[in-house]
Amino acid sequence: MNRKQLITAFLKFLPEEAILYEAEDLRPYECDALSAYRQMPMIVVLPRTEAEIAAILQICHAGQVPVVARGSGTGLSGGALPHAEGVLLSLAKLNRILDIDPAACTARVQPGVRNLAISEAAASYEMYYAPDPSSQIACSIGGNVAENSGGVHCLKYGLTVHNILRLRVLTIEGDVLEIGADALDSPGFDLLALMTGSEGMLGIVTEITVKLLPKPETVKLVMAVFDDISKAGDAVANVIQAGIIPAGMEMMDKITIHAVEDFVHAGYDLEGAAILLCESDGMAEEVADEIKQIQTILQASGAVRISLARDEAERQLFWAGRKAAFPAAGRVSPDYYCMDGTIPRKHLAHVLEQIEQLSAEYGLRCMNVFHAGDGNLHPLILYDANQLGELEKAEAFGARILEICIQSGGSLTGEHGVGIEKLNQMCLQFNDAERDLFHAVKAAFDPQSLLNPGKAIPELHRCAEFGAMHVHRGAEKFPDIPRF
Amino acid sequence: MNRKQLITAFLKFLPEEAILYEAEDLRPYECDALSAYRQMPMIVVLPRTEAEIAAILQICHAGQVPVVARGSGTGLSGGALPHAEGVLLSLAKLNRILDIDPAACTARVQPGVRNLAISEAAASYEMYYAPDPSSQIACSIGGNVAENSGGVHCLKYGLTVHNILRLRVLTIEGDVLEIGADALDSPGFDLLALMTGSEGMLGIVTEITVKLLPKPETVKLVMAVFDDISKAGDAVANVIQAGIIPAGMEMMDKITIHAVEDFVHAGYDLEGAAILLCESDGMAEEVADEIKQIQTILQASGAVRISLARDEAERQLFWAGRKAAFPAAGRVSPDYYCMDGTIPRKHLAHVLEQIEQLSAEYGLRCMNVFHAGDGNLHPLILYDANQLGELEKAEAFGARILEICIQSGGSLTGEHGVGIEKLNQMCLQFNDAERDLFHAVKAAFDPQSLLNPGKAIPELHRCAEFGAMHVHRGAEKFPDIPRF
Repeated sequence: MNRKQLITAFLKFLPEEAILYEAEDLRPYECDALSAYRQMPMIVVLPRTEAEIAAILQICHAGQVPVVARGSGTGLSGGALPHAEGVLLSLAKLNRILDIDPAACTARVQPGVRNLAISEAAASYEMYYAPDPSSQIACSIGGNVAENSGGVHCLKYGLTVHNILRLRVLTIEGDVLEIGADALDSPGFDLLALMTGSEGMLGIVTEITVKLLPKPETVKLVMAVFDDISKAGDAVANVIQAGIIPAGMEMMDKITIHAVEDFVHAGYDLEGAAILLCESDGMAEEVADEIKQIQTILQASGAVRISLARDEAERQLFWAGRKAAFPAAGRVSPDYYCMDGTIPRKHLAHVLEQIEQLSAEYGLRCMNVFHAGDGNLHPLILYDANQLGELEKAEAFGARILEICIQSGGSLTGEHGVGIEKLNQMCLQFNDAERDLFHAVKAAFDPQSLLNPGKAIPELHRCAEFGAMHVHRGAEKFPDIPRF
Repeated sequence: MNRKQLITAFLKFLPEEAILYEAEDLRPYECDALSAYRQMPMIVVLPRTEAEIAAILQICHAGQVPVVARGSGTGLSGGALPHAEGVLLSLAKLNRILDIDPAACTARVQPGVRNLAISEAAASYEMYYAPDPSSQIACSIGGNVAENSGGVHCLKYGLTVHNILRLRVLTIEGDVLEIGADALDSPGFDLLALMTGSEGMLGIVTEITVKLLPKPETVKLVMAVFDDISKAGDAVANVIQAGIIPAGMEMMDKITIHAVEDFVHAGYDLEGAAILLCESDGMAEEVADEIKQIQTILQASGAVRISLARDEAERQLFWAGRKAAFPAAGRVSPDYYCMDGTIPRKHLAHVLEQIEQLSAEYGLRCMNVFHAGDGNLHPLILYDANQLGELEKAEAFGARILEICIQSGGSLTGEHGVGIEKLNQMCLQFNDAERDLFHAVKAAFDPQSLLNPGKAIPELHRCAEFGAMHVHRGAEKFPDIPRF
């Protein structure tokens, strides 16, 4: 179907203002927060109801038109990059909180609701929604489901998948699926987990039932300074191994400390090689006890200075530096390239050393700031796109970091998704059988590949062209066994 | 392929004793713990290595022979019921703990390892594996993955899916899949969650990396007696709503209390209408504080007597009653039929009332004993199979209970799986589009449906014959929108 035919079909049930097709109206949708990739869609639709979405999907399905869903457009991997011959389906107008049930500790919301708006609405019941991506003021809960978003507190409280109970989903045919249950488990295959993090490739989420948690009585934050980043890495592993799951455990290296301290004056120690922020929340006695244990372990791990935020204002100040890391990178370098690899915690110190060596090798600075507790690295490679070859060097440096992450037993993305950005690296992480299976699962939901085509899972020829050897154990054969 | 051809093919790489085909050797495999369903397999194989399994699968795939995997055979839904023309693939000989990594808090094990053996092996590091199904002495971790098993402690520590990091899986073609990562999240679709609870229908798990937890410093148990089972139900909801996640929260009704007290003399109050056991574990101060809060809430919820187990011996005694509930049912009734529905906690009191009404309606006693905290009911319907029509009445009663569970927003199985037992009830819980999708996902892994065929997901004609109207919202149509 061409643009004109689509508009005619959509106008039967959508008001004119819900259909955008002029270049100036399409422009704001040409990219998400990974603005290096841009593509104008054929058309943008802004439905207000599930029924309207179902009809849009039925039309696109009948006409074989690709559909790319978009929440708030804050994604960092190009997952919402439009398709040139496709419909960009904005879910922004489905922004109602349908129900809050304080007895069941749940909220039922539409996909366009902002992450933070859920906690704001639940605040009158002294409850909140735990996953807190940095973009939580703006990002939508539907986008969080699509990317299985995490945040500072996901170490203790889990990713999006651990904080939702039910999804209402439309298939590309416009059929309704009710996935999950208000109870702990649901029979049949775990489609709730399968949908979560599927980057808009399996269905369109129209309703989400999230878990709410009671607000913790007390929150305390410890800041520890180390003269050696390896010691800080080991300290993280030591805390976890002692059976403590902090509410948050974030780390910054020296270059990050300097960049953010110049910017927000958080009171960070400029002599330190690394700073660790370690938060505890819960009941007052429990927090007091946990903070004491954390301090003891950090001391034993070689911290040169440990400060407990003396009040809420100082706690916010300590956090302010961490939260300003990305903008601070923008102040010290014309450009930066943010990675999102994950590694097993025990390899933190070793991986950090390797990144330092690569930094010297490529002649590019790298700020390391990350969710240390769950091994989710966010190296920010600093470069200048106006210097010939620096972008290419930054990309090569980044690819090496992801290889190290995968080799250490981790993965190429912790919370930002694969999108369009990390398709090549998927060839490193997964073997042919695994990628075949991803495609087969995609086809089970969407046989014509109309939902967000070309994202998240590389086609087999792409991996052949990329020339990647995947680095898993999976490829090994069974030489001693006859083949049939 | 017939039996003789299969044996010839298997003998090329398996020793004779690893292939069973005489009736007397097959007999022990004709059922799992749901012995109402029995079927002799064509052949049983007992491989010792992953390579042998891969070869078995390749042969069965080439010969279009069904394959049913079996762990310890403790399953309660007939998931390991053999196929008459199929191979029963026992994983019992793959019983090695391959690696324990105390720094990473993980263990890598083969599927035939017993659940409890993991905790026994980890004990020297003061760690343990959290999910603890009642059958944990005997059941295998591979079976736990197949059924996504829970246990008394899953309220706080989650189901199997929340306690594993990686799976190594063989497809029906014998290809290796490495699923998951040593880190928090993995890119691509969430195949780890999809495999977990898939009842042997998607692949054969050959290695599992589980999470280990540090043993809690302190464990305390409170027993509360109620004169009204509804009050006990509300007490459960009140504890959770206060932000407390007990390590275990189990409930028994009057008939259960009497049956177990006669049997194990746990010191239960025979006047009580319901008993609630509520456990707290963690650091000493934390536990003391939590127990105090729990006691206050139970009191406010109308408990007539609250006892704190004074020492470890009394704690074990309080638990002994709960753990003896199933054998106690066997003592007070010739037969019992165990259900496994889940409901939202807030509906506990209401659902219990409805079960009581049904009990009167069908003239059958029902013991209610369950994981109250996560809303997982285990009603034991007492009947006498030698009384004409009682089995049918028990089955009808059970079906009504599951309908109530689904209608209340819960599901038809909490931890026992669908298997062969609850195929009809799947028609109640899922609409056509949802069941179609389950079949499509199955086909993505196993297009010829050779892996455990006929389990877990009803064929469409079955639901038509069962005549079920599914009770979800999913079927509603969009009457105001033109159809395309």
